Amino acid sequence: MKDFSILEKKLDIEFKNKNLLIQAFTHRSYLNENPSFHVFHNERLEFLGDAVLELVVTEYLYINYPKKLEGELTNWRAALVNNSRTLNKIAQEVGFNDFLLLSKGEAKEGGKSRQSILANTFESFVGSLYLDQGYKASKEFIVKHLIKELPKILAENLFKDAKSDFQEQAQEKAGTTPNYQVLQEQGPDHAKKFTIGVFLDKELIAKGKGLSKQEAEEQAAKNALETKGWQ
Amino acid sequence: MKDFSILEKKLDIEFKNKNLLIQAFTHRSYLNENPSFHVFHNERLEFLGDAVLELVVTEYLYINYPKKLEGELTNWRAALVNNSRTLNKIAQEVGFNDFLLLSKGEAKEGGKSRQSILANTFESFVGSLYLDQGYKASKEFIVKHLIKELPKILAENLFKDAKSDFQEQAQEKAGTTPNYQVLQEQGPDHAKKFTIGVFLDKELIAKGKGLSKQEAEEQAAKNALETKGWQ
Repeated sequence: MKDFSILEKKLDIEFKNKNLLIQAFTHRSYLNENPSFHVFHNERLEFLGDAVLELVVTEYLYINYPKKLEGELTNWRAALVNNSRTLNKIAQEVGFNDFLLLSKGEAKEGGKSRQSILANTFESFVGSLYLDQGYKASKEFIVKHLIKELPKILAENLFKDAKSDFQEQAQEKAGTTPNYQVLQEQGPDHAKKFTIGVFLDKELIAKGKGLSKQEAEEQAAKNALETKGWQ
Repeated sequence: MKDFSILEKKLDIEFKNKNLLIQAFTHRSYLNENPSFHVFHNERLEFLGDAVLELVVTEYLYINYPKKLEGELTNWRAALVNNSRTLNKIAQEVGFNDFLLLSKGEAKEGGKSRQSILANTFESFVGSLYLDQGYKASKEFIVKHLIKELPKILAENLFKDAKSDFQEQAQEKAGTTPNYQVLQEQGPDHAKKFTIGVFLDKELIAKGKGLSKQEAEEQAAKNALETKGWQ
């Protein structure tokens, strides 16, 4: 069994309920091999932690960027919260990789699989921390370890919009540049709704709707990324 | 100007910062007609309130349904939080419709447009409440007015999964029943990934990926709902 007190020391956080801490690191695959393990896997904690993370980051952005509009803040938040590369990197930095409880098969996997497990474990850990120590302590942890990445993300423009992302990937993977066409305009002038299709060559990949052409194109690109599985 | 003290009395909540309360009800269209209005529109508050709502509902479900898995709780949460019909209904019940600050054009609109404005205003109000009165007061408001709907939602099975939703709409709108086909299986046995396509007749509408066929089908149905604009 791993010695989680090492992690507690490293993070300078002492859990009241040690099982909550252990559960945060217990991957579903570990229970397959150890069905009588004394805690359940971490997916419920991940469900909770994801929402804690979202509120902490949202509140931080709301308070610290009073002049920014909601659309831009939504992009920034997504770069911090929905980006498994970012969460994976932070999870590595705080040493979570050494504490994962995985099946033998899963322990051998690296790459994308490990990246996503680490990102999820960051969330389940936040869930545990919230239950054990409350909102304030969770906030401190998230600000200290995750939000410190924000300036870098902004500087490197990592929070790519879906249109840019889809274009880059289309060029790389399909050797072509997407084009957008308005398929439909609906409603009166003050409340027009656009439906736009994104095409690779002549193939319609996905559609998007929005109150402006920009919004509809961005939505179409998002849907196209999903359709293509280019996440 | 509307008398927001009537609303405060009705909700039995007294705001310290009355402008926050007013801002929650200020639609973007109102500022177009009243550019010198003393508060900004409510979209930043909606961004914040959405995250507060998400955490309150997530925590409630986590605590009160200790035996439920994350997947099911995610569906329940979506039915409460991401369903503009639910939020619109609650916003009506608490009397928000009488306090919306809208442009004259927007005030004449009903239907979907008003429904979505009311649902958004529910979120912006939660954002204001959180800033003015903190997490506990927001939680009380949300539990009292929104979470009370949960038993009904569960009973009526309102939280339809995407597959059922897509099937129903396909039958209604396209007169056909979707079918699903595995397009690809990848990876070793203990970590297989499936790509599944959903078809209407022989037309591929969308694809989905997942660690099980069920998961991939559900994802494909979600993508298909987006592709078709059947939200």
